[in-house]
Amino acid sequence: MPDAMWDLLVTGGLVLSLDDGIGTVKNGAVAVKGDTIAAVGHSEELHKTAAVKIIDACGGIIMPGLINTHTHAAMTLFRGLADDLPLMTWLNDHIFPAESKLTDEAVYWGSLLACAEMIRSGTTCFCDMYLFEDAVARAAADAGIRALVGEVLFDFPSPNYGPLEKGLAYTESLIGKWASHPLVSVAVEPHSPYLCAPQLLKEARDLATYHHVPLITHLSETRSEVAQIKERYGRTPVRHLADLGVLSKNLVAAHCVVLTDEDMALLNEYDVKVSHNPESNMKLASGIAPVPELLARGICVGLGTDGCASNNNLDLFSEMDTAAKLHKVNTLDPTITDAATVLRMATTSAARALGMKHLIGSLRPGKKADLIVIDTRKPHLIPMYNPESHIVYAVRGNDVSTTIINGRVVMEQGKLSTIDMDRVAGKVETIARQIAGGRS
Amino acid sequence: MPDAMWDLLVTGGLVLSLDDGIGTVKNGAVAVKGDTIAAVGHSEELHKTAAVKIIDACGGIIMPGLINTHTHAAMTLFRGLADDLPLMTWLNDHIFPAESKLTDEAVYWGSLLACAEMIRSGTTCFCDMYLFEDAVARAAADAGIRALVGEVLFDFPSPNYGPLEKGLAYTESLIGKWASHPLVSVAVEPHSPYLCAPQLLKEARDLATYHHVPLITHLSETRSEVAQIKERYGRTPVRHLADLGVLSKNLVAAHCVVLTDEDMALLNEYDVKVSHNPESNMKLASGIAPVPELLARGICVGLGTDGCASNNNLDLFSEMDTAAKLHKVNTLDPTITDAATVLRMATTSAARALGMKHLIGSLRPGKKADLIVIDTRKPHLIPMYNPESHIVYAVRGNDVSTTIINGRVVMEQGKLSTIDMDRVAGKVETIARQIAGGRS
Repeated sequence: MPDAMWDLLVTGGLVLSLDDGIGTVKNGAVAVKGDTIAAVGHSEELHKTAAVKIIDACGGIIMPGLINTHTHAAMTLFRGLADDLPLMTWLNDHIFPAESKLTDEAVYWGSLLACAEMIRSGTTCFCDMYLFEDAVARAAADAGIRALVGEVLFDFPSPNYGPLEKGLAYTESLIGKWASHPLVSVAVEPHSPYLCAPQLLKEARDLATYHHVPLITHLSETRSEVAQIKERYGRTPVRHLADLGVLSKNLVAAHCVVLTDEDMALLNEYDVKVSHNPESNMKLASGIAPVPELLARGICVGLGTDGCASNNNLDLFSEMDTAAKLHKVNTLDPTITDAATVLRMATTSAARALGMKHLIGSLRPGKKADLIVIDTRKPHLIPMYNPESHIVYAVRGNDVSTTIINGRVVMEQGKLSTIDMDRVAGKVETIARQIAGGRS
Repeated sequence: MPDAMWDLLVTGGLVLSLDDGIGTVKNGAVAVKGDTIAAVGHSEELHKTAAVKIIDACGGIIMPGLINTHTHAAMTLFRGLADDLPLMTWLNDHIFPAESKLTDEAVYWGSLLACAEMIRSGTTCFCDMYLFEDAVARAAADAGIRALVGEVLFDFPSPNYGPLEKGLAYTESLIGKWASHPLVSVAVEPHSPYLCAPQLLKEARDLATYHHVPLITHLSETRSEVAQIKERYGRTPVRHLADLGVLSKNLVAAHCVVLTDEDMALLNEYDVKVSHNPESNMKLASGIAPVPELLARGICVGLGTDGCASNNNLDLFSEMDTAAKLHKVNTLDPTITDAATVLRMATTSAARALGMKHLIGSLRPGKKADLIVIDTRKPHLIPMYNPESHIVYAVRGNDVSTTIINGRVVMEQGKLSTIDMDRVAGKVETIARQIAGGRS
């Protein structure tokens, strides 16, 4: 009887559900029906029901797909364009001029490349902030990856929507356009307190509240930002947002590197979600976010890669490794940010940060079927004493063999099924030549 | 005419020679005759001479193999056995008990696994310190990887050579045994100033001097080590070694995390070589070595991964990425330890640190043919503006497609030719079960 069949059975692996009730299942399997996880259990048990398609995990790890809480996907176009430079030189002489020439088409192809990289490295959902965000949404939809997107809003004209007063209307049109899409949803995304006047921040908040969507901003990323906001408003960026009434449980604040005790207390009081981007903060020499303190206060922290111009890849496995190690050396405490904690920053906590806790982040019946298989038959993954340690300290994105999003197999045995990489590479290389040629 | 033929031609890639005279060659090739680089040039030009075997780099990067200046290869056996613990708990309750049960056979298989991982991730030479080092040497020889090995010496009995007074004799026998091997050479390796009395340190130095081989030790890795040495001898570990006459240009000092200005001046004065192991220092919360200051003084710094128990992989590409970013955030200067500098820490400077500058570290005619090909046809390596940035910030070990050591192709298209991975995995998993079973 077709009704009694699974659409997909991923079997024969160590299931790391990250669900407290289910835990870890040796020789386990995950059954999928439509876009949803139907069952998590022992392979033998789940094999009693027939399945349209079976994927053998070959003794590897079956786990939830990773969730990238902060990126600028299309910045793949600028990967390695300019590195090792002072922040302002990097921005003013390289990134901003390159961005000023972006088009909807360029952002589409750059985002599709990012989707390919993310799917290839086991990321099944990303949160994006950029220009021409409809193109990012289309790329995500075409790639079959889950995405929370939002057009960046600031106090000057945009190459996309034009004058600043049109930014919120554009965002609202995006919200309407993608409202019923199974994978893409839309957030309201004012860039930061230093590029957005109080009025814009408050209007953005109101729009997010009205539509029940997340509000996302950069916050307290650098010392110079904090100094600038203090000079302008006489208070820290976090206090500034608190006074404007912008802090809330629906706010995702990216970076949060430079925080006072009062800032942390405010983030906690309003249940603000923090996106931690350690590799970008390191590469741009912004500083080290006080993540152990944020976690100790009970603040929800998700992991992000930031854009490719400041990382320079979108590999969340590397990012977990770096996060786990960075806070140890920063606090001189080797027990800080252990593997289990960091793994949750890229899965369950990331889902909660993006308001998707009920949908994704762990493997349990009823949640969306976003899962990956790690091929552990590699020299660097032998032996395996502790899967969580392996995932954080030894696995790299390349070790993901299969990626399933919303029940659809978007990569199997390393082969992408939704993206024609030759075409994407050709398009991106053409765009990159224009970018390189246009530089002084 | 066979005499006029290359044995091997690696062609059709961007050759990053890291030799100042040769630089970078677009659509370049490297010709190999026997164990030696015969020519570096344009593909078209080098194709005029016939070759027994041709490897197409498919537009990727052809570069020198990476050199790991400090590891304990067989600690692959303990990968993920114990993480996120206080240093002394980790050592006393997990690592030391596991090491006390090691055998020559276990070290052989653990080391062969490490060789597989290193070859797979583009490392063509490693410097090792461990117990049963003859087994490491045999593993390296069997794997066809270049290695500088040395039995660890300390003030207590060894499970390998027995009472401490036999350590130097054992080392001398190793030097004799491997003297004429094309890949393996032997160093004298007292563990550290805190586990070696002055007498042992001086005798080790004399043995290294007599045989013209490097002297290798851990040095100033942690604050507690420095405090202990200060209490015992009234001076820093570096000053202690200086006073004993142990500092020299043939000394490779691993870690050098906790250094005073005077320490750095001494390291510079004696031209001591430093092995920098950022990921291990981060994971064990030891601290951050003052690498930018060491480099500014002109001290030779090579990169190392340390053992798998404190990393937990041997991927020098990840290590380069971490090194480049760590010092930026530590100094709050994004221009510090740029990609070019860090790349040399894993190649030319590493070769110099190990006394192999004349043999390896760059691609130039007359040097040994240790080279790798990076497959850049991957989503995370598109587009490419700057190959050095790519190598440090985006490439991972998995992206290496071909590894050639001493003229021999030890991996082609990701397939290892010298190691039976199924056999190694089986052996290591058996040993790992014994290790896990023997724990309290």
